Amino acid sequence: MQTPDVSAVEATAEGWPPPGTPDIEIARSVQPQSILLLAQQHFGLAADSLIPFGHYKAKLNMDNYTLPDPSHYGKLVLVTAVSPTPAGEGKTTTSVGLNDGLNQLGIRSSVCLREPSLGPCFGMKGGAAGGGRSQVIPMEDINLHFNGDFHAITSAHNLLASILDNHIHWGSESGLDPRRVTWRRVLDLNDRSLRHTITGLGGPAHGTPRETGFDITVASELMAILCLADGLADLRDRLSRIIVGRRRDGSPVTVGDIGAEGAMTILLKDALQPNLVQSLEHNPVFIHGGPFANIAHGCNSVMATRAALGLNDVVVTEAGFGADLGAEKFIDIKCRQTGLQPDAVVLVCTVRALKMHGGVAKSQLGNPDVQAVRAGAENLARHIRNLRQFGLSPVVSINRFPTDSEEELAAVQAISAEWGARAVVSSHWADGSAGATDLAQAVQDQLNDGTPECQFLYRDEDSLSDKIHTIATRLYDAAGVEFSTEARRQIEEYEQLGFGHLPVCIAKTQYSFSADPKQLGAPSGHTLPVREVRLAAGAGFVVVVCGDVMTMPGLPRHPAALDMGLNEKGQVFGLV
Amino acid sequence: MQTPDVSAVEATAEGWPPPGTPDIEIARSVQPQSILLLAQQHFGLAADSLIPFGHYKAKLNMDNYTLPDPSHYGKLVLVTAVSPTPAGEGKTTTSVGLNDGLNQLGIRSSVCLREPSLGPCFGMKGGAAGGGRSQVIPMEDINLHFNGDFHAITSAHNLLASILDNHIHWGSESGLDPRRVTWRRVLDLNDRSLRHTITGLGGPAHGTPRETGFDITVASELMAILCLADGLADLRDRLSRIIVGRRRDGSPVTVGDIGAEGAMTILLKDALQPNLVQSLEHNPVFIHGGPFANIAHGCNSVMATRAALGLNDVVVTEAGFGADLGAEKFIDIKCRQTGLQPDAVVLVCTVRALKMHGGVAKSQLGNPDVQAVRAGAENLARHIRNLRQFGLSPVVSINRFPTDSEEELAAVQAISAEWGARAVVSSHWADGSAGATDLAQAVQDQLNDGTPECQFLYRDEDSLSDKIHTIATRLYDAAGVEFSTEARRQIEEYEQLGFGHLPVCIAKTQYSFSADPKQLGAPSGHTLPVREVRLAAGAGFVVVVCGDVMTMPGLPRHPAALDMGLNEKGQVFGLV
Repeated sequence: MQTPDVSAVEATAEGWPPPGTPDIEIARSVQPQSILLLAQQHFGLAADSLIPFGHYKAKLNMDNYTLPDPSHYGKLVLVTAVSPTPAGEGKTTTSVGLNDGLNQLGIRSSVCLREPSLGPCFGMKGGAAGGGRSQVIPMEDINLHFNGDFHAITSAHNLLASILDNHIHWGSESGLDPRRVTWRRVLDLNDRSLRHTITGLGGPAHGTPRETGFDITVASELMAILCLADGLADLRDRLSRIIVGRRRDGSPVTVGDIGAEGAMTILLKDALQPNLVQSLEHNPVFIHGGPFANIAHGCNSVMATRAALGLNDVVVTEAGFGADLGAEKFIDIKCRQTGLQPDAVVLVCTVRALKMHGGVAKSQLGNPDVQAVRAGAENLARHIRNLRQFGLSPVVSINRFPTDSEEELAAVQAISAEWGARAVVSSHWADGSAGATDLAQAVQDQLNDGTPECQFLYRDEDSLSDKIHTIATRLYDAAGVEFSTEARRQIEEYEQLGFGHLPVCIAKTQYSFSADPKQLGAPSGHTLPVREVRLAAGAGFVVVVCGDVMTMPGLPRHPAALDMGLNEKGQVFGLV
Repeated sequence: MQTPDVSAVEATAEGWPPPGTPDIEIARSVQPQSILLLAQQHFGLAADSLIPFGHYKAKLNMDNYTLPDPSHYGKLVLVTAVSPTPAGEGKTTTSVGLNDGLNQLGIRSSVCLREPSLGPCFGMKGGAAGGGRSQVIPMEDINLHFNGDFHAITSAHNLLASILDNHIHWGSESGLDPRRVTWRRVLDLNDRSLRHTITGLGGPAHGTPRETGFDITVASELMAILCLADGLADLRDRLSRIIVGRRRDGSPVTVGDIGAEGAMTILLKDALQPNLVQSLEHNPVFIHGGPFANIAHGCNSVMATRAALGLNDVVVTEAGFGADLGAEKFIDIKCRQTGLQPDAVVLVCTVRALKMHGGVAKSQLGNPDVQAVRAGAENLARHIRNLRQFGLSPVVSINRFPTDSEEELAAVQAISAEWGARAVVSSHWADGSAGATDLAQAVQDQLNDGTPECQFLYRDEDSLSDKIHTIATRLYDAAGVEFSTEARRQIEEYEQLGFGHLPVCIAKTQYSFSADPKQLGAPSGHTLPVREVRLAAGAGFVVVVCGDVMTMPGLPRHPAALDMGLNEKGQVFGLV
């Protein structure tokens, strides 16, 4: 193993490229450190505790690394945000910057993030690995096949689909009704033409014709399972509990009934091991799993969180969307299932996002407008209040943009103070760890103040409808919940089948506390419309669909893919 | 990087498990060597010339390893076989054993093999990495996601499909006719229900309804392209030449017309780098690429072959199916496109396979039957004769089975001698390199005799029909070729489009010289029926379909997947 010249790396870290340099060039200006060396220096891990994927990425070898007793875990810091806007909040960037800031303070810290999906990369979004000086490298690898995890999920998901169609082809011994198969197929792509398909055409040698379709891999129940399983045995048990369809009498058929869980476990066994990479400042970053934040719980894997907690004094982790969805699911699903709990919470906002919540158009965000900031801060205030309902007092992190005025920043701090929260301006995007030490210190102060008494929002024994009602009224300030006839029937059925104790996973727009994406700020008195309720018996939650939910995105008229390629040096262009 | 204790490894290698031990247990009895150490010891390669995937697998880092001038290449030994039978020939086992034997003789040698597909693993076949003491390790990894190559091909193939359907959805600027899209989708699975599908259902927001379907990933034109490309630039150029469908006027639309070749190249750039693993005796094995041997050319990648030739004095490589298909395509397609040529050929047979060609049923193969061996050896003789038409004199390798009698072995040797070929009995399956030194010495003698004058069977400037006719009459001993009306029309069109100079790739049954899989031995006077002719403009050949060709296998009534899992040690069971 070649040992990179660490002094050279540090020189690079000090000699940042000038302001205005594109993210990709900032990322390429830094020579990554050997990941085996990094794991040794940060964690004292020997090479055989890691499975290298190239010289700068690795998986933790969970065969050779024993998870410590939770009593020896470090502190867990949850990073969440105000309701997302097109202005961008920079939650990942803040998570990476905060981790660099904590390490800068001499605190042994890692950050746990989700893996990006290939689909959006080739559509509109480009890559996802932080921004500015708060990025994770190697960026291209993380955005492309990244250690094969999503490919393994795609394979295991579609293997099950082929086994089911084969089972039907040979006579459906289990009684699975071909008209009631609910297990679809997945690809890690944006492909609208696969949303609604008919398969099994061409005559009796080619299967039984059925209406079905494909979702994007991140929407697979296997993704949620991989992220909630706490080991291989739990993974296999969860897989066997998946409901794939119904018999003619309506009774559910599980993967265990078919016997496919062993082969699926084999395909997923490597993917279950957490991935380790590094920030631009060579601090450890775990990136593992990437469940949707709408129809799933939207946080990185339990395996990575646990491994990181065993190896660090502080672990920073991120939840999807705003705190109404991401933080709620983090606590009511991930923490409930695992016994984990956050010791501190960071609530990310930007002046620009608050201005949008205050009614300013995206094109006008560059103009100072303290009034709009104050109006939009209602959204921030609602999230602070909500987090208190979980027993958590957030530190507000204002992710600074060059256009922010001092008055606007002061306004956010004042409003946060009104709600009892300390707000820190953080310039990690422009300055790396040097810009995040205030934030890191504020988080460390919070951690030193003692462990909060984190509470779930509802109890296991509440009915599914009551759980939904509690979230809607207490977090969204809805007047009530309106269930469709179908949703009522589904809830009744799941409770009869014995799944009433499961937590609920709300799939609604992330842009508003209501189900209407246009109601920004802090709407109240609205009704939460529940259209459909789906059972994810393997993942261990009930998905509550409120409005349209897209599980297979489409490509735009001119996909980003058409402007991508390799330059003469063999470097990727167009990915970000 | 931990350095394994080499003395411990050698002790294991000497202390083989007793005869009768299952392949998987033999494989697990050997501790693999660090792949970085192996590359250093065998090739003098530094760690940065490799991209490790775990400690026992790696890719060659083609950025840091410069391919030498072909004048510094080692000798190339092609391993081919008699017409396959259900009795098995052991071509891969022989290739691995021969390489171990050559290394045992002190010759710096590597073997280049194809990657197995996931689909058959979960159907009937189980894994594929040699057998007995001539195996490649780590077996499970090679049979599962193996460094992500096939997943990358699946992604790139389906990205193109989604871009095409998106292109049509937004108005088909190129003029691509939705009814004439020939690009399908792929999955690395056996899934008969996906052979014939309708996509784009559900209304105008969800694309344009079309009849299409899925093939298994090894049947993707991208697989053939990856295996024939000699670098990233050639890869991109080949991708851009792929024909995805037609306009209303019948003119072809290419990937280059759509502009997807850059993004596809990005997805395939890592997969293009050859994979390095090891035999049970810690000799280097390159396993890279796995195109179908029917609708494609059926050999490992040009990148791996070239890299191995630059690093070794001798390189052993394997072609698919029997010599009539595999060796012919190796020479007329791979060698023609690249300038490579074999310096020696090994023709693998077994006494059992010859008995089947001589009319013995599979259940009776354990009984000595010299008469049947002699009758079946007509198949062997035909292949020897055929190889001479390429200017090559094969060494016949009799892959010894415990039930073979001395008389039977002697009969094969006598018949080989009649046809001017030296036949060597090789017991590498039972004995590892110790059983393959005779074979290795025979091959080395052949190499020392000088370079053969290898010739193609036909010239580039022959018409496509003439090329097919030449192969049918000279190799298959057919009386003639019968073209369907459709095939004639297609040939005419491809020649008009300027593709008449391409080599042809015959897709017919591998079990017979004829198109009838039941005609074993050495049939003659038959007619080769050409049903359809397909253009693979990116791969650079014209596929000639003779009879039924399956490009998406199905699962059996009881798929192997249902008996797979992880044992209490976390080890895979049921895969082989």
